[in-house]
Formats: sequence, C-alpha cells, structure tokens
Amino acid sequence: MFKKIQKLKFKIKPVCAHCDLMCGVYDPQQALIEARSVQAIMQKYHASDDQDYRTRCIIIKEQRAELVKQHLWVLWTDYFQPEHLELHPDLHNLFWRATKQAGQCKKTVKLDDAQKLIDLIEEISTVFAKTKA
Amino acid sequence: MFKKIQKLKFKIKPVCAHCDLMCGVYDPQQALIEARSVQAIMQKYHASDDQDYRTRCIIIKEQRAELVKQHLWVLWTDYFQPEHLELHPDLHNLFWRATKQAGQCKKTVKLDDAQKLIDLIEEISTVFAKTKA
Amino acid sequence: MFKKIQKLKFKIKPVCAHCDLMCGVYDPQQALIEARSVQAIMQKYHASDDQDYRTRCIIIKEQRAELVKQHLWVLWTDYFQPEHLELHPDLHNLFWRATKQAGQCKKTVKLDDAQKLIDLIEEISTVFAKTKA
Amino acid sequence: MFKKIQKLKFKIKPVCAHCDLMCGVYDPQQALIEARSVQAIMQKYHASDDQDYRTRCIIIKEQRAELVKQHLWVLWTDYFQPEHLELHPDLHNLFWRATKQAGQCKKTVKLDDAQKLIDLIEEISTVFAKTKA
Amino acid sequence: MFKKIQKLKFKIKPVCAHCDLMCGVYDPQQALIEARSVQAIMQKYHASDDQDYRTRCIIIKEQRAELVKQHLWVLWTDYFQPEHLELHPDLHNLFWRATKQAGQCKKTVKLDDAQKLIDLIEEISTVFAKTKA
Amino acid sequence: MFKKIQKLKFKIKPVCAHCDLMCGVYDPQQALIEARSVQAIMQKYHASDDQDYRTRCIIIKEQRAELVKQHLWVLWTDYFQPEHLELHPDLHNLFWRATKQAGQCKKTVKLDDAQKLIDLIEEISTVFAKTKA
Repeated sequence: MFKKIQKLKFKIKPVCAHCDLMCGVYDPQQALIEARSVQAIMQKYHASDDQDYRTRCIIIKEQRAELVKQHLWVLWTDYFQPEHLELHPDLHNLFWRATKQAGQCKKTVKLDDAQKLIDLIEEISTVFAKTKA
Repeated sequence: MFKKIQKLKFKIKPVCAHCDLMCGVYDPQQALIEARSVQAIMQKYHASDDQDYRTRCIIIKEQRAELVKQHLWVLWTDYFQPEHLELHPDLHNLFWRATKQAGQCKKTVKLDDAQKLIDLIEEISTVFAKTKA
Repeated sequence: MFKKIQKLKFKIKPVCAHCDLMCGVYDPQQALIEARSVQAIMQKYHASDDQDYRTRCIIIKEQRAELVKQHLWVLWTDYFQPEHLELHPDLHNLFWRATKQAGQCKKTVKLDDAQKLIDLIEEISTVFAKTKA
Repeated sequence: MFKKIQKLKFKIKPVCAHCDLMCGVYDPQQALIEARSVQAIMQKYHASDDQDYRTRCIIIKEQRAELVKQHLWVLWTDYFQPEHLELHPDLHNLFWRATKQAGQCKKTVKLDDAQKLIDLIEEISTVFAKTKA
Repeated sequence: MFKKIQKLKFKIKPVCAHCDLMCGVYDPQQALIEARSVQAIMQKYHASDDQDYRTRCIIIKEQRAELVKQHLWVLWTDYFQPEHLELHPDLHNLFWRATKQAGQCKKTVKLDDAQKLIDLIEEISTVFAKTKA
Repeated sequence: MFKKIQKLKFKIKPVCAHCDLMCGVYDPQQALIEARSVQAIMQKYHASDDQDYRTRCIIIKEQRAELVKQHLWVLWTDYFQPEHLELHPDLHNLFWRATKQAGQCKKTVKLDDAQKLIDLIEEISTVFAKTKA
C-alpha cells in the first residue's frame, strides 16, 4: 500500500485548470471519497437496530451526499470547458444523473443506490482523465 | 444524447415537488436576488476609491456570486426533471452558462458581467414558469 | 423608550441602501420562500409513516426554519433604520415574534405554526413595502 | 462597568433557558469574546502597513463581527422572553443598536467603534445577569 | 476545580496570542459553553419520550459537540506554542483525549460522557490559565 | 493517466475506521488536494499584479488553508487510535506541525511554505498508509 501511495505522488501533480480564480486543483477523488462514505454509512445503518444510531446515520449521510453534490457541481461548472463538451457531448447529462443520484442517496439506505452513485462518479473520473491526457 | 435522455425518463419517476425530500418549494427569485446584489456591489465598488472598502466589496461579491451558483445548482439538479428537458433541450447548457457567468462575476467588477448573469437567470425563470403552466 | 429612539435617530445616519456594505438588495421573499418550505415539509411529514423519512423531515425543517431566522435577522438589523421605526413603532416586536415563531416551527410539525410564521413574514413584507413607497 | 462584569461571574451558571430545543445554555460571553477579537484585529491592522496583511485583517474582522451578530441574534430571539421585556422595556432597542454596531465594525477600523460594540454587549450582559438573579 | 476557574477569571483579559492573524483572543470558555450545552441536551433527551423531540436532541447535540471540537482544535493549533509544550508535555494528549471525548458525546446520550468532556476542558482551562500567568 | 485511474479503483476500497459514526472513510488525499490548491493560488498571486485579483487570491487561500486544517484535525482525532500512537510516537507532533504550517500558509504567499505543508501531509500519508498495511 505504501509504495502505491508513493507512486501516486508522481502521477498527480498540481494542474492549472479553470476555476473561479482561473487556477484550481480539481480531482474527482473528492466526490468519490464522500460517495464511499455514503455507502459505508448505509452498511453501518443496516448493521445496527439502535434508533438513535440510525438517526445519526441519516443525519451524516445527508451531509456526505450533499458534499458529493457540491464537489460534482464545482467540477461541472468550474473545471469543464466548452472544448471538453465537444469531445464528450454527454457530459451535462452525466453530471445531472450523478448529482440526482447523490440526491437519491439521501432518500434511501439502499446500497445499490450508493453503488450507482460511485459508478457514475467513476464514469466522470474517466472523462476527467481523458481531458488531462 | 437525446435518446439516452428519453430512456432515462422511464427510469426516474417524476415526483410531486421534486426536491431531495420529494417536496420542496423552488423559486428562481433566490438566485436573482443574489445576482442583483452582485450588481449593486459592483456599482458601489466603482463609486468608491477607498482600498479597504473595495476589499470588502470583493469579499462580499465573492460570497453573493457563490450563493447564485448554489441556488442555480439546486434548481438544476433537484427541481428539473427529464420531462422538462424534453420540452427545453437547451436546459443543461443554459444552467452551465449561468453558473459559469456567476463565476465570471467573481473575477471582474464589470457591470456588464452582472447584467449577463441577471439575463441568464431571467431566461431560466422563463423556462421555470413554463414548467409550472 | 420612544424618546430614546428619537434621540438615536440623530446619531445613526440613515444611509443609502442600508446593508453592512451600505448598499444591499433586500427582499422579504427570501424568508417567505423558506417559510413555505417549512410548511411543505410538515405536510410531507404527515403524509408519510416511514421513520427514516420523518427523521429527514425533522432535519431539513430545522435547517429551513433556521434560514427563516437568518433572513429575518438580517432584514431587521441591516435594512431597517431609525426613521422606519418611527413610522412603525411595533417593528421590533414584529420581528421578535416572527423569529420566535420560526423557532416554534422547529419544535412542532403543526401546520398552524407554519401558517402563523408565514402570516408574520407577510406582515413584515407589508411594512417593508411601505418603506419603499 | 468592569465591576458589573466581575459580579456577573458569580451569577452565571449552566442554565436551562428557552432555546429552540427548550433547554439551552446561553452566555453573552460568546458575543463578547468575538467583539474583543474584532478590536484586537483593528489594533493589528493599524500596527502594520503590509497590504496583504491588512486584507486578511479585513476578511477576518468581517467574519468575527458576523459572529457577534449571530450570537446576539440568538440571545435576543431564543433566550429572552416576554416577561424579561416587561422588566427591561429597552431590550429590543439595545439589541438592535448592538447588532447594528457589529455591522458598523465591519465597515471601519476605528477602535472606538469596537469599544462601543463591547460596551453595548456589556450592557446586554448586565440585563442578562438580572434575569438570572 | 471550581476555585481554579474562579481564579482564572481575574487573569483572562483581551490578549494578543498567536492565531493565524498573529493576534487573536482565545478563551477555553467557548468550548466549555458548548460542552455544557451538550450535557443539557442529554438531560432533555432523557426527560422526554417524544420521538421527534429526541431526534432533534440528536441533531443539535451533533452540532454542539462538533463546535466543541472546533474550538478545541483552534486552541490547540493556533494558541499553544512550543514553549507551552515544554511546560506541559502532556498537552497534545490532553487535547486528543478531549476532542475524542467530544466525538464520544455525539455517539451516546450518557451524562457521564458529557461530564468527562467538561472535566477535560476544565483541565485544558487550567493549563491555559498557567500560560497566561 | 486513464489506466492509472482505473488501477487506482482496485487499490482504494471503503475502509471502516473509527469516525464519530464508528465507520468512516478517511483519506489524507483530501488535505493534500487543498494544500496543492494553496500552492497553486500562491503561484497565481505572484504571476499577477492586479490588486483585486491578489485580494481574491488572499481570500481563497485563506479558505483552502482552513480546509487543510479541518481535514487534518478530523484525521488526527477521528481516525488515529491509541494503538497507532504506540507505533508512531511522533504522531501528535506531526499533526501539530502540519496544522500550524497550514496556518502559516494563510500568513504568507511563499511557495516554500506551501511546499513544507505538502511535505508534512505526505509524511502523514506515509504513517496513515502504514496503519492500513
């Protein structure tokens, strides 16, 4: 694991994209980490039958799913540019479905819903990676 | 792209009032009020030559423009549904341009930039009103 | 008390558009939209008997009612000026009752409580409109 | 004034007041600490002539003064009750002046403005202490 | 312990410590007030058997306990300096235990957990007071 | 790049650590991304001589550096456990230095300061990785 992290460092480097300051560091990992957190919370929810604990799961899942939306919205509006849209015409729809799926993960405790969210963010990561190539 | 959306329609069920709770109260006025605030701040900026005051203008304009983005993103993801997209195929692009324009209003103190933002939100308001008709 | 306020008038100078930047865009609609959201959430709460859904209603109602308070407090402190108070001597009390009613809407799921909140904000809107006349 | 605060200390203890949960712990010290921070920032502002440092002073002063407002608004709406108002008929006006003064402290770097804010909060502390007596 | 706190009061005055602006006003009271709020919420929780009310207790306790963490973290990183560490070698551990205990207070409604948190913050207050002596 | 991202997916998996919910997904990447953003902002600051742009750099750098602190504090308090401390006795000091360095990055626009922050977070990443091994 350690070596993997070490190697990772040489791959990711500060990139100047097109944020509101005209130079940001974007990374779909931010949304992905929160989405995995949503999924882990759902698992914990099902593993417990304590009402207060489940209430806390609902509260925190609400927050993490909201963070997924925030990270995705920023990526969509701030990072992606018209030239990217030409190469990936489905981009808008992909982000719309992903942010809607994050909303869906607030509504349910279905692991499948969290998995769909993770899959959509990984699809976005793939498009993102292509724009960096 | 359109076909994908068509198919999508049958998967995501249009629900009553459409927020993450499945019943929210949406209103493009929220974004519009903040956008007008952005424009008013720019006017004040130009009317003063006090450095500290101008710094405060930049700080507060940054916050209000961010609120414009937040309100628009919520509207786009939470309120609008696949069937709306069918009637207004340019919807995604309209929101993308509007949120990008809000970002632009962070970068400059040009009244024209704020006016373009207001115009785009009013365009969104028109689409919104049609979905309510 | 009124005499103190009278004296006060000569000390605090009424300024152009009255926010902390000395020029803001105020609108009681902001509080009203959130109050309507509070009421809609209460309706949804009663229409469901799913415990998790009701928990989410409580969470989100808490946030929207808090936003009502925020918008009203800003309006009270930042927009209204001593000369307004002279024309509407009940202004302070009206805002106090309205913000307390927003607190009340956190505590209950009674539609009447939300309606009272909406009524109070509309009363504020009326006063606000008169100051613009 | 200082003596009042000294005395005040023996009276303040964890109390169950009347917050939105119907049992909160209120303390005017919260607003006072932030107000002192505002004053200290102003002093630092004047002691430096570095533009970036002064910009940071303006940013952080804006935040601390906002926190003063928040703490005072919560105290006014959530802690104080109609029976307190009977004993202290000037209560509304006192809070209005104090929150307006916090707004004033965003606008200037005048130490006098911060001192006036501190004085007003100490006046509120005195009233608060009486309600506990 | 109470005597220490009493004595503490004569020592605390607006100080220029070492915050990110290089001049802040620090006070462990901020964390203590929130911790007392956590304890009061737990008491209210046990005094009620209304499910919605208890849900609100969990929500608000989560927020107040988070504020305890925030205040303690700021104190630890921003106020305390290497020379303090020399005098109080257990400082890091004390803060780690206190912030972990705040996390513990999110997880339970045990009054003992809140009391332990309060005790740890009072221990921090004592160290803090010594650094001011 | 794309292959790297694909591979990455198989390496990072949801881990159940010990957050306030007792099951969180932790990742030092969150702090690292914000620290790189801080560095990129500093570079942009130096590349421009527009006063308003530089003001925006200071504002946004302040926010990103604060996020670094938040992510590190959560990692320190919520993820790390007494058994980790036994293996890495310098853990507390490492986090203290890293969060203090994030504070330092608010104060200056020195690229070296940002680099030191990045180095410290990578040191934390190394310790973190070892606890996962």
